[in-house]
Amino acid sequence: MADIPSKVEIGVTTGAIRGSKKIHVATQTGSGIKVAMREIYLDPSCDDAPVRVYDSSGPYTDENVLIDISKGLAELRAPWIRARGDVEEVTQREVRPEDNGQLGPDRSGGVAPFPNVRKTVLRAKPGANVSQMHYARKGIITPEMEYVAERENLGRARLEEYKRDGESFGAEIPDYVTPEFVRDEIARGRAIIPNNINHPESEPMAIGRNFLVKINANIGNSAVASDVATEVDKMVWSIRWGADTVMDLSTGRNIHDTREWIIRNSPVPIGTVPIYQALEKVGGVAEDLTWEIFRDTLIEQAEQGVDYFTIHAGVRLPYVPLAAKRVTGIVSRGGSIMAKWCLAHHKESFLYEHFDDITEIMKAYDIAYSLGDGLRPGSIADANDEAQFAELYTLGELTHRAWKSDVQVMIEGPGHVPMHKIKENMTKQLEVCGEAPFYTLGPLTTDIAPGYDHITSGIGAAMIGWYGTAMLCYVTPKEHLGLPDRDDVKVGVVTYKLAAHAADLAKGHPAAQVRDDALSKARFEFRWRDQFNLSLDPDTAEQYHDQTLPAEGAKTAHFCSMCGPKFCSMKISQEVREFARLQNQEAEGFIAAEEGGLSAEAIAKAESGMAEMSKVYDETGRELYMGAGDREHD
Amino acid sequence: MADIPSKVEIGVTTGAIRGSKKIHVATQTGSGIKVAMREIYLDPSCDDAPVRVYDSSGPYTDENVLIDISKGLAELRAPWIRARGDVEEVTQREVRPEDNGQLGPDRSGGVAPFPNVRKTVLRAKPGANVSQMHYARKGIITPEMEYVAERENLGRARLEEYKRDGESFGAEIPDYVTPEFVRDEIARGRAIIPNNINHPESEPMAIGRNFLVKINANIGNSAVASDVATEVDKMVWSIRWGADTVMDLSTGRNIHDTREWIIRNSPVPIGTVPIYQALEKVGGVAEDLTWEIFRDTLIEQAEQGVDYFTIHAGVRLPYVPLAAKRVTGIVSRGGSIMAKWCLAHHKESFLYEHFDDITEIMKAYDIAYSLGDGLRPGSIADANDEAQFAELYTLGELTHRAWKSDVQVMIEGPGHVPMHKIKENMTKQLEVCGEAPFYTLGPLTTDIAPGYDHITSGIGAAMIGWYGTAMLCYVTPKEHLGLPDRDDVKVGVVTYKLAAHAADLAKGHPAAQVRDDALSKARFEFRWRDQFNLSLDPDTAEQYHDQTLPAEGAKTAHFCSMCGPKFCSMKISQEVREFARLQNQEAEGFIAAEEGGLSAEAIAKAESGMAEMSKVYDETGRELYMGAGDREHD
Repeated sequence: MADIPSKVEIGVTTGAIRGSKKIHVATQTGSGIKVAMREIYLDPSCDDAPVRVYDSSGPYTDENVLIDISKGLAELRAPWIRARGDVEEVTQREVRPEDNGQLGPDRSGGVAPFPNVRKTVLRAKPGANVSQMHYARKGIITPEMEYVAERENLGRARLEEYKRDGESFGAEIPDYVTPEFVRDEIARGRAIIPNNINHPESEPMAIGRNFLVKINANIGNSAVASDVATEVDKMVWSIRWGADTVMDLSTGRNIHDTREWIIRNSPVPIGTVPIYQALEKVGGVAEDLTWEIFRDTLIEQAEQGVDYFTIHAGVRLPYVPLAAKRVTGIVSRGGSIMAKWCLAHHKESFLYEHFDDITEIMKAYDIAYSLGDGLRPGSIADANDEAQFAELYTLGELTHRAWKSDVQVMIEGPGHVPMHKIKENMTKQLEVCGEAPFYTLGPLTTDIAPGYDHITSGIGAAMIGWYGTAMLCYVTPKEHLGLPDRDDVKVGVVTYKLAAHAADLAKGHPAAQVRDDALSKARFEFRWRDQFNLSLDPDTAEQYHDQTLPAEGAKTAHFCSMCGPKFCSMKISQEVREFARLQNQEAEGFIAAEEGGLSAEAIAKAESGMAEMSKVYDETGRELYMGAGDREHD
Repeated sequence: MADIPSKVEIGVTTGAIRGSKKIHVATQTGSGIKVAMREIYLDPSCDDAPVRVYDSSGPYTDENVLIDISKGLAELRAPWIRARGDVEEVTQREVRPEDNGQLGPDRSGGVAPFPNVRKTVLRAKPGANVSQMHYARKGIITPEMEYVAERENLGRARLEEYKRDGESFGAEIPDYVTPEFVRDEIARGRAIIPNNINHPESEPMAIGRNFLVKINANIGNSAVASDVATEVDKMVWSIRWGADTVMDLSTGRNIHDTREWIIRNSPVPIGTVPIYQALEKVGGVAEDLTWEIFRDTLIEQAEQGVDYFTIHAGVRLPYVPLAAKRVTGIVSRGGSIMAKWCLAHHKESFLYEHFDDITEIMKAYDIAYSLGDGLRPGSIADANDEAQFAELYTLGELTHRAWKSDVQVMIEGPGHVPMHKIKENMTKQLEVCGEAPFYTLGPLTTDIAPGYDHITSGIGAAMIGWYGTAMLCYVTPKEHLGLPDRDDVKVGVVTYKLAAHAADLAKGHPAAQVRDDALSKARFEFRWRDQFNLSLDPDTAEQYHDQTLPAEGAKTAHFCSMCGPKFCSMKISQEVREFARLQNQEAEGFIAAEEGGLSAEAIAKAESGMAEMSKVYDETGRELYMGAGDREHD
């Protein structure tokens, strides 16, 4: 066993995100619950209030919290869970060598076990159901729901006068999110709060069409994982830039121990694909998988605190041959494992056959289903084909079965889909899965740009997010080519964050445009630091700026490098505005454009107004504007 | 004057793009016209023919051409232009110091003049009109139209059996492009072929809704431009990665001479914004601009061979105050110059007043209008506002005025637009501008991601391209922050190329999916080199692959780093396919999925079939599959 010091050297990324601080906003109920958010300062030269933004980064960006990954995070939800009186403590299933992919007794060379491992874990009392959906359907508003409501409002007050904009395609985003609204969405199955009772460290978050669009980042263990902080930091780094959930897709050795480290230190829900670990336990031979081994793996991970499981129960025996005529066959690993099992045994999938048994486990820990799309298309040619939709219909059937037991469900979606076929995916999913949240990978809108698939998929992600997808699974630039490094993960997360935000704007989320407006106003007023700080990636924004104009003075300059100091359209615009102000007349009253142009009368009025104004203009100064080359466009 | 050697050291990027070669495909008419394309080789292990792709890179990627930028490119179109008998040679307007931004007589420190400058240039004979639209309306199919037709077909034969797919939103893309179709599109104003008679080096290309979606890259001179090859290489580098046209947005010193170097060496149409140079001629004082100075600049650039002019004639005096209430005012430089001129003189824009005079110049050289959107929105808040649409209506009016003189027109569009407001831009543009080609900048779908605006805008570009925009103006990662370097330009071009291709796929262009299918097939068959070579950026794809698996053997390996050698869904899929083949039964006949799942009968039939097949499976080998960590997703 590797030696582990009593206090692990902190190797994870901490500290506030540039230009902002962590705040905790009390909910409206007076319950004492406080919701973590991030507040971005603005330059004192502007009178605007700091901008509050959604924050998935957890205590790592809180200057007041000392991080010790060998202890794990504080257990925010522990008192809420226990107060409900429906859980019991049970002895944790003993960790076996095969849980870490080591069939022999020797764990050497692997990851050290988490030093603070629990002896006992929680489970629903016999006959009890601890899912948020169960409470919701009984009319109970949980602290988790209350937390989510405030979080979705970004700490803003109800905006009575807010003018809604957007096309929501049937989503019903409220002007203001109340805890009761959250409860109702959970009860109807339109949203989930993935939070295993054994992961009390998590900050509650909702995935649903009527909430902000979320994103997921995937991480996995390294082949040689000797440094546990590096493994934990993959999660910490992902959430720093905006990942709302993280899937741990580790395989091979040390996966049990690595997962323990990650969950104990994660403020966001953790998802897994349990079939991966089950496969390790049978030495990698898909045919040797059994329900018993799979079940044991579910219990193992449930006790550790995994918040949602990808279960590929829709890959049914009869659908497998449908994939044979495809250009790229089956591209989901979970899907291909199950396809192989079905073929080898000429039997229906044990995941499908034992679905209700799985559901019984899910409800004892409040684990959400993420029903896997094992037959998703892996190329434009295979999009929206028979195999894909056959599986989707089965996922719809399973959704309704899970809901009978009040277990939370989301549905995974493709993949590779050209733009004109994206909407059909959303429409069919809403219809057959009863509006259960959709969770898609991309989709990639073309196959021809490996190296840029964060972008080919970011296009599809923004669109399907707009149409109603609740969570977008990120894709990095290394997709199809290699393993993402730290930079790739950041680029993937930021790309998906901007896609999700573009979707929120287009859906007409009442809080979305606040940040765009603040940034654009900062741009117009040459508040460079505010512009950087309000962006999704302040570090990159400042670095790009400094490549051309590194001097500190340029941060306060009333120009940028694109057009140079003497020729700036923004500056001219400010003059136009000042001009309008000086004439003591509102622009609206001054002139109005009509379809097809202005009336001769209106133009005449404008021209006489202008004649007067030009005198003022001469008095207020006529500046020179000279170009300075190399800007991007006119 | 700087010393210039008789033969300039070649400093531009040459050589074939990896894994491909330049080919020249004869048109169907037997006229002898040959169209440049690029052919990507495939591994001999597959029986498929090489893949032909559209190629904007010109002779620079032709191994058989010796590039000498001091001589310029061969004049492909010169005999075509002269054969029409409607042009005359005139003495070129003398170059003046102010043309290069140098009001004194000294040109030292600047760019050397192009050594091979023409003494005489071409102009339409008095009363003649040399525009492609004029010929088209007279029923003449020009060699330019014939070239374009073959180019748009990507050298493929007419596909009689091709099954069309896509949603074209009213576009009328034919199965096969004939020269007559091109003529008709030009005659109707739905497409343009921008090619000044003084730029005979250009390879004809079409911009129109019923052709492949095109992209533009912007370049500009450096503040200190001592190395002319660097300036020319900005153009060469842009077209290498796929820019279909290039706009030279240079300002300040040396712009006349720099432009001459660029045009003489450019195989793609060159666009400019003449008001920039006019402003230089009046020392940067917008108010001092006059029609006479502007007119002189148009002639100067027309004689050099600029193929399209951005003219901001839609920024009319009465619209200027509409921009005052915006969050970001006027963000177009051309627009703000004209707004300032209008305000200062309290007069209608001289571009609007002299529009017909400008048209007379355009038709004498066949320069296309790119009617500028000087009032485009610069932020989400300002999208689709009164100012923007007031200008658009005026651009519609001007389009019809230009068409009366048979002058080619395209319309520039925004800017910053959230997804749900993009379609309105396209719909209005088609309606008011009589289906003249739309040429948009992005649009950016959110303001909150400076540093990633190639992506925020790539999303909008793909969508508006799908809706019908004919050409997309690229945005680089440095947008809003600084000057793009070589890497930024490449990332911008590739991003826009993939967006344009995604749009072609979604519109249902009959030739678009060929490349996707070839790449996906290569992926499925583990032809790694083919996968790299078929991508938009083979160098980056291979580099990313090699970061994880650098060994040469990995290029032919039947696995990748994501799932490791022993656990690959693609490999399992191949087994599934082989399995289906062995049972000597088409997958279609084997089972069919129906809405809502399969009938019990069908499932029973499937299961009995599977039972037989499993025996075959045991005989053909059961392989082990083990995970190997760190892949992106399941």
